Amino acid sequence: MSNSKTPLPGNAVIGQSGGPTAVINQSLVGVVEGLHAAPGFTGKILGARHAIDGMMAGDFLDLTDWQQDRLDRLAGTPSSGLGSSRHKPSADDVKRITKYLEEHDIRYFFYIGGNDSSDTCRIVAETAAADGYEMHAFHVPKTVDNDLVLNDHTPGFGSAAKFVAQAIMGDDLDNRSLKGVKIDVIMGRHAGFLTAASVLGRRAGTDDGPHLVYVPEAAFDVVKFTQDVERTMDRFGRCLIAVSEGIHDADGTPMAAKLAEMQGHHVEKDAHGNIQLSGTGALGDFLAQAVKDYMGHKTRVRADTFGYLQRSFAGVASEVDQQEARLAGRKAAELATSGIQHGSVAIQRVPGDTYGVEYNRIELTDVAAKTKHLPAEWIVNANDIGQGFVDYALPLVGELPVVERL
Amino acid sequence: MSNSKTPLPGNAVIGQSGGPTAVINQSLVGVVEGLHAAPGFTGKILGARHAIDGMMAGDFLDLTDWQQDRLDRLAGTPSSGLGSSRHKPSADDVKRITKYLEEHDIRYFFYIGGNDSSDTCRIVAETAAADGYEMHAFHVPKTVDNDLVLNDHTPGFGSAAKFVAQAIMGDDLDNRSLKGVKIDVIMGRHAGFLTAASVLGRRAGTDDGPHLVYVPEAAFDVVKFTQDVERTMDRFGRCLIAVSEGIHDADGTPMAAKLAEMQGHHVEKDAHGNIQLSGTGALGDFLAQAVKDYMGHKTRVRADTFGYLQRSFAGVASEVDQQEARLAGRKAAELATSGIQHGSVAIQRVPGDTYGVEYNRIELTDVAAKTKHLPAEWIVNANDIGQGFVDYALPLVGELPVVERL
Repeated sequence: MSNSKTPLPGNAVIGQSGGPTAVINQSLVGVVEGLHAAPGFTGKILGARHAIDGMMAGDFLDLTDWQQDRLDRLAGTPSSGLGSSRHKPSADDVKRITKYLEEHDIRYFFYIGGNDSSDTCRIVAETAAADGYEMHAFHVPKTVDNDLVLNDHTPGFGSAAKFVAQAIMGDDLDNRSLKGVKIDVIMGRHAGFLTAASVLGRRAGTDDGPHLVYVPEAAFDVVKFTQDVERTMDRFGRCLIAVSEGIHDADGTPMAAKLAEMQGHHVEKDAHGNIQLSGTGALGDFLAQAVKDYMGHKTRVRADTFGYLQRSFAGVASEVDQQEARLAGRKAAELATSGIQHGSVAIQRVPGDTYGVEYNRIELTDVAAKTKHLPAEWIVNANDIGQGFVDYALPLVGELPVVERL
Repeated sequence: MSNSKTPLPGNAVIGQSGGPTAVINQSLVGVVEGLHAAPGFTGKILGARHAIDGMMAGDFLDLTDWQQDRLDRLAGTPSSGLGSSRHKPSADDVKRITKYLEEHDIRYFFYIGGNDSSDTCRIVAETAAADGYEMHAFHVPKTVDNDLVLNDHTPGFGSAAKFVAQAIMGDDLDNRSLKGVKIDVIMGRHAGFLTAASVLGRRAGTDDGPHLVYVPEAAFDVVKFTQDVERTMDRFGRCLIAVSEGIHDADGTPMAAKLAEMQGHHVEKDAHGNIQLSGTGALGDFLAQAVKDYMGHKTRVRADTFGYLQRSFAGVASEVDQQEARLAGRKAAELATSGIQHGSVAIQRVPGDTYGVEYNRIELTDVAAKTKHLPAEWIVNANDIGQGFVDYALPLVGELPVVERL
């Protein structure tokens, strides 16, 4: 690894990949600010429109001369300002990308995204290196799923968790007011962190909901589920349930896939082989029907699927998450311009009584295509979340609304 | 109508009925504050648990000695703090209620709710009067649907509209980022006001979404809908759609009812004969499937149903809505304790360049069982909402987040 202290001549490109978050533009602006602050960096700062798609088409937006007020407004805007992509580049695609990068004299490549994105970043970096083209490539973490290894947590999670916590606090008050069974389906394909965030506004030792929480880390069984609901109804006269879109049975088959098959639907998959989970109310409606079938049609049963609001709602973000996303972007720019060739920025918590984090470089290969899961000790009886998670997650979310329950 | 200036001796009861809102507790607290401020009122202030259910069972909560800080916290809490009910009282039920009211020496009856609730208020008032029992009965308006006649708008609408506007602003940014067809199903059984609020964050004359808006006031046709979507996709490469849960065909049959019948589902109805619309993703999924069938399975189509988050989300409320809900409650207490026997408080806009409202007494019979609709001149081509609505609704919602689009 070369470690020249003078930045390379040439330009920088930034891409935003995968699902949007409330703070992915903070990271974009953080990279821009980090490049402006880098001694000796005098190149252009380009944004690739729709990530890898823009890089394959030479579709770039020049961000070099953006003033601070516009950058600040962009940073506070949810979703990926440059546009995103779920395209998984083929070997030929990567060759086209590196051709464009060389043509535009791109010497710094920043890619903001999840573990699929860090893998794309690695492939582009390796292809450029094999070409003998010197380019520094950095991945900036982002995912509401919070499932990147070696990271204490990821930018985007805190804000999505805040949305979920506030939504569930409100829905618990709604369910108190008009009693019955309420099922809320929350994002999370393999990791239950976001669904676990449903408990963050719950007062311990009270009848506050959610009363049942199901995450992908524990096998899901419909019969046990309906029994859990019945027991909760007997106890509280109401039942608020938070359930991950990614729940699966003991064989590992996602409920969403089983369901689509049962209903004779086409199962839609993305370029990475993931089946469609979000953007449909089918899982919630299926679970509601299962409860009605078991408990009788007199029981009031409702299901909501929080959907894309969790990642893109305008006006609800965690301040800690916003700051960390910005600093993760700046750190990537600092590392890349200080001569380090590639890596991913990991947010790692500093042990101690007060909350604090460090931004450390890890290898791209360490984060690519791996998934972090909710620790088993935070899952209670396969249908609830314990205090360990609350202690972990509250500092990431910040203050929640104060409500008065009668 | 007697108009004695001295308050009646005796106590007051307050109920909260129908679907919760973000500000129905403001009205509850407003009534409490209005009673405390009424010269000569020295009785108890009771809250009926779960509205009519609590009144039939004598299940009251004493709010008389609540301190201001607790009242303020309650006012800022979404959903109905006392609990709600959708029960429609029978003649026998009303007799039981008046018996309890007489036993508890209740001389002021306040009922916060929509048009069904004002009717309940009227029936209770008439039954008490027929008994020769002197009691003043007032209705305080509440509904996210904004469909009460003689009211410029209703408490609850502004906050739900703000939630919808912010959700759609975010989802428009999400849809820009990962292009495709996105359908958002919004509350509104007979009135399209809340769905119309989807346009409040849209900049006129740009490619901002929503690109298509369907409300119950215009007949819905699935074929025309899919053609509208295709035309929008051709124009913008993406299509964001806001659609009311209450859309119906030219015959007046709700799509949700047709759909349930097609799928062989049991159609759930409440005590007022309304079919279940909220708490299911079925309508959104049906419309998504219709688009896929028409445009081919390669088109990325997603549907979200905003559900109960629109009325109960903790932490998003319109300040104007909060203030008006509180003042409507106070006004009801003022009117009732100033000797007026019954009525409903209507929020009416003062004509002029700056926004302002008056709180006026109207007859209970004027508001009961009637529905206000979105004026026809605000509906454009049966698939969009015009500037007239924006001018009307923006003052009710207040400031929206500032976002930067690239």
